[in-house]
Amino acid sequence: MSPVASDSAIAEAAVATPVPEDLEPAVAADGGESVEQNVTPWEVQGADGQGIDYDKLVEKFGCQKLDEATIARVERLTGMPAHPFLKRGIFFAVRDFNDILDAYEAGKKFYLYTGRGPSSESLHLGHLIPFQFTKYLQDAFKVPLVIQLTDDEKAIWKNLSVDEARRLARENAKDIIACGFDVTRTFIFADFDYVGGPFYRNIVQIARCVTYNQVKGIFGFTNDDNIGKIGFPPVQAAPSFPTSFPHLFGSDRDIRCLIPCAIDQDPYFRMTRDVAPRLGYHKPALIESRFFPALQGENTKMSASDQTSAIYVTDTAKQIQEKVRKYAFSGGRQTKEEHRALGANLDVDVPFKWLTFFLDDDEQLEAIRRDYGSGVMFTGEVKDTLIALLQGMVARHQAARTMVTEEMVDVFMSPRPLPNMFD
Amino acid sequence: MSPVASDSAIAEAAVATPVPEDLEPAVAADGGESVEQNVTPWEVQGADGQGIDYDKLVEKFGCQKLDEATIARVERLTGMPAHPFLKRGIFFAVRDFNDILDAYEAGKKFYLYTGRGPSSESLHLGHLIPFQFTKYLQDAFKVPLVIQLTDDEKAIWKNLSVDEARRLARENAKDIIACGFDVTRTFIFADFDYVGGPFYRNIVQIARCVTYNQVKGIFGFTNDDNIGKIGFPPVQAAPSFPTSFPHLFGSDRDIRCLIPCAIDQDPYFRMTRDVAPRLGYHKPALIESRFFPALQGENTKMSASDQTSAIYVTDTAKQIQEKVRKYAFSGGRQTKEEHRALGANLDVDVPFKWLTFFLDDDEQLEAIRRDYGSGVMFTGEVKDTLIALLQGMVARHQAARTMVTEEMVDVFMSPRPLPNMFD
Repeated sequence: MSPVASDSAIAEAAVATPVPEDLEPAVAADGGESVEQNVTPWEVQGADGQGIDYDKLVEKFGCQKLDEATIARVERLTGMPAHPFLKRGIFFAVRDFNDILDAYEAGKKFYLYTGRGPSSESLHLGHLIPFQFTKYLQDAFKVPLVIQLTDDEKAIWKNLSVDEARRLARENAKDIIACGFDVTRTFIFADFDYVGGPFYRNIVQIARCVTYNQVKGIFGFTNDDNIGKIGFPPVQAAPSFPTSFPHLFGSDRDIRCLIPCAIDQDPYFRMTRDVAPRLGYHKPALIESRFFPALQGENTKMSASDQTSAIYVTDTAKQIQEKVRKYAFSGGRQTKEEHRALGANLDVDVPFKWLTFFLDDDEQLEAIRRDYGSGVMFTGEVKDTLIALLQGMVARHQAARTMVTEEMVDVFMSPRPLPNMFD
Repeated sequence: MSPVASDSAIAEAAVATPVPEDLEPAVAADGGESVEQNVTPWEVQGADGQGIDYDKLVEKFGCQKLDEATIARVERLTGMPAHPFLKRGIFFAVRDFNDILDAYEAGKKFYLYTGRGPSSESLHLGHLIPFQFTKYLQDAFKVPLVIQLTDDEKAIWKNLSVDEARRLARENAKDIIACGFDVTRTFIFADFDYVGGPFYRNIVQIARCVTYNQVKGIFGFTNDDNIGKIGFPPVQAAPSFPTSFPHLFGSDRDIRCLIPCAIDQDPYFRMTRDVAPRLGYHKPALIESRFFPALQGENTKMSASDQTSAIYVTDTAKQIQEKVRKYAFSGGRQTKEEHRALGANLDVDVPFKWLTFFLDDDEQLEAIRRDYGSGVMFTGEVKDTLIALLQGMVARHQAARTMVTEEMVDVFMSPRPLPNMFD
C-alpha cells in the first residue's frame, strides 16, 4: 500500500499517448489528443496536464465527500478538536465513516489499518501525511492500529530483490515509528515476514471471490502482467479483516476496520468491500486524502528519481531552504506592482498549499491567505514561513528517528497481544 | 498437487462439446465432433472416448520416455532392483532424470518432492502409487523428501472451507505416513500452515516471472477464473527450490530436486523449469507416471462421487471382493468356447492391468499374462488373484494407518532439521 500515490504525489504532466481504453479520443482545444484523468494505485494523472478533479474522482469511485456535520460529530465523540487535515478538506472522502462513528458511539470499538509500499530509502513529506493523520485518529479514538508494509508489492512492481525490499520495509518502519505511534496499540508488519497462517488463509479466501476480469476492470491489469501483480490485491485486502490478526482480535469477526489512506488506494478497498459480506465481515470503512503537491506544482510529479521535487525527512535545514527558495512554484506575480494590484494566485501557489497541510495555526494561515492573496505579502515572506516550519518539523522527525532503536522496531513488528489496546 | 490426476484417474468418456481452442473441429468417423486428448492437472480426457495416448502426450509435453539403459543405471547406482513401476513402464516419462543420476554418481545428493491435493477423506489405490514409488526412491537413494499437501488448491478449486481443507490434509497425511516414509528424512507440509517466510518469498519471486498469458497457455485458465487459481501455480512450483526449506537445506541453492508425480502435473513443472535458471536454481527433474485405470475401464472416470469406480484404503475385504467381482471390467470373452479360442483381451482387462501395478512377482504376472491371454485361464481366477492381493495390501495399509498417532503427524509436519537425511 502506498497511501500517497506511490511516489507520484500528483498528476503527471499530460502525455502524448492516448488512454488505451479510449477508442475515440476526444480532441483537446489545442488540437492534441485529450488525456482523461486516471487514478490507480500506480498512476495518478490529471486530465490534460491539469490537477486532479477530486469531485469527478469521488463520483467515479462512488465514495462520499466528508461533510461539516460529520467533522463536528468526530469532535464531539472524541472530545478533541478535529485534525487540521479534516477541517481543511485534506482528508475529504469517506465510505461508511458514519457507521464507524455509530458503532463507536454505541460502545463498540474498531481498529485502524494503513500502510506503505516501501519503495524508497527514506520518506518525503507527502508520505508522512497518512501517518500523521492516523496517529491523530489513534490518539483521539484510542484504538489499535495495524500498519502493512507491502515489501512484496514493491518486489513485484519495482523488481527489487526480496532482500532489498525487506530492508527498505524495515528502514521505513523506523520513520513510521518516529511519527509517534503508541507501541501498546500498534502492530507493524511486512508481508514477506507476516504472510502465512490465518493471514494467508484470508488471502486465499478473498482471492477465490475475485475473477481475473474483475481485477482487470478495477486495476487495469493486462494479459502481459505477471501473476504476482494479479495475485497481489488480496494481500492488501486481507488486513481489512480482523481474523488476519489473531494475536490482536482472537476469532472476533465483528470488529470493524477503518482505513485512512490516499484516494488512489480506493480500488483495493472497493474490491475488499465487495468481498467482505461474502466472507462474513463488515465492509471496511475508509477516510481518504487528496494528494500532496510536488514542489514544482500540482501538475508535476513528485518523483524519487528527482530529489528536487520533494522534501525528504533526511534533508538538512540548508537543503530545505534551498529547495523551497529555488523550486517551490510561486503564485506570486511577475512584478511588485502587479503583485500589489492582483495578489498571489493561491490556486497554484505551492508554498501556500504546503502551509495548508502543515501550518497548524488557523489564524496565521488565514492571515497569510488574506495578505498574500491580496498582494500585501510577498512570496519571499511566505516561503520563509514555510522554510522555518518545515525545518522545525523535519528536525523533530530526525530527532525522533534517532531515538528509534532496532529493538523498538523488533517490538513494533512482533506479532504480540496488545492487552490494553482499547483502553 | 494431485499426483493421480485429481480424482479422475483416467480419460473421461468423450463429451459432445468441442474443444474451445479447436476452431475447425475435425469430424469423427461416426459423424460427431472429434474430441482431442486433453490432459491438465484438473482434467484427463482421451481423444474420442479412447484411453490416453501416452506417446502423443510425451511428444506434446516435450518430456522423454524412460529407457532400459537408465533403469539399469538406477539399479547399478542404488544396488537395489528397480521398482516394478519402473520395469513395467508405469513411471515412464522423465525430464533431466539422467542429470540427477550424474550428480548422484558424482557424490552430490538431491531431494525428492511430491504431493497431493487433499480433496477427499480417504485415498484410493491410485493415490497410493506416487507415494509407493517415492518411498522406493527414498529408500534406494537415501535422500530427503518433502511432501506438499495443497489444501489451499482444494479450497480454491473445490470451494471447500479452509477448515475442511485443512482437516482433509491432516487425514491424508496419516495415509501417506502409513506408506512407510522414514521420519528422519521426510517433511510433510500443508500450504495453509506452511506458506510464509522463505516459502512465500519464493512464491512471489516465481510469480513475477510468469505472465497471465503464460499461465493461460499452460493451464487453460480463462478470464472468468478467480485470481486464486491464477495465483496458485507458483505455490506448487516453490517446493522445487531448496531455499523453500531452510530448516532442511539452509541457504543451499545448488541441491537438485527430483519430482515423482503423475504426468498430468507436468504443466506445473514446465512452468517451474522455465523460471528456475532465472532465479539461480537447477531445473527440477521429473519422473512421471501413467494414470491408474478406474475399475470400469480406462475410458471411464475414477470419481470420488462414485464409490464403485475405485477401491479405497478404507474398504473392507468384503467390499473389495464385491467391487472387483461386480465392477472390474473384464477382457474375457462372452462364452467359454470363445474365451478358449481367442483368449482374454488384455488391452482392456482391468483386473490384469491392476495386477500389473500391484503384483510384485514377475513370474506370476507373466504366467497370468500367458495363460489368461491365451484363454487357458478365466476371468474368475484372475479376479480372485487380484482380490486376495488387494485385500492383503489394504489390510496392511489399514494396520499401518492405525499405528499413526496424532503425535506422529505432528512430528512429520513440524518444520525441523533432519540431520541424518543424507546418510
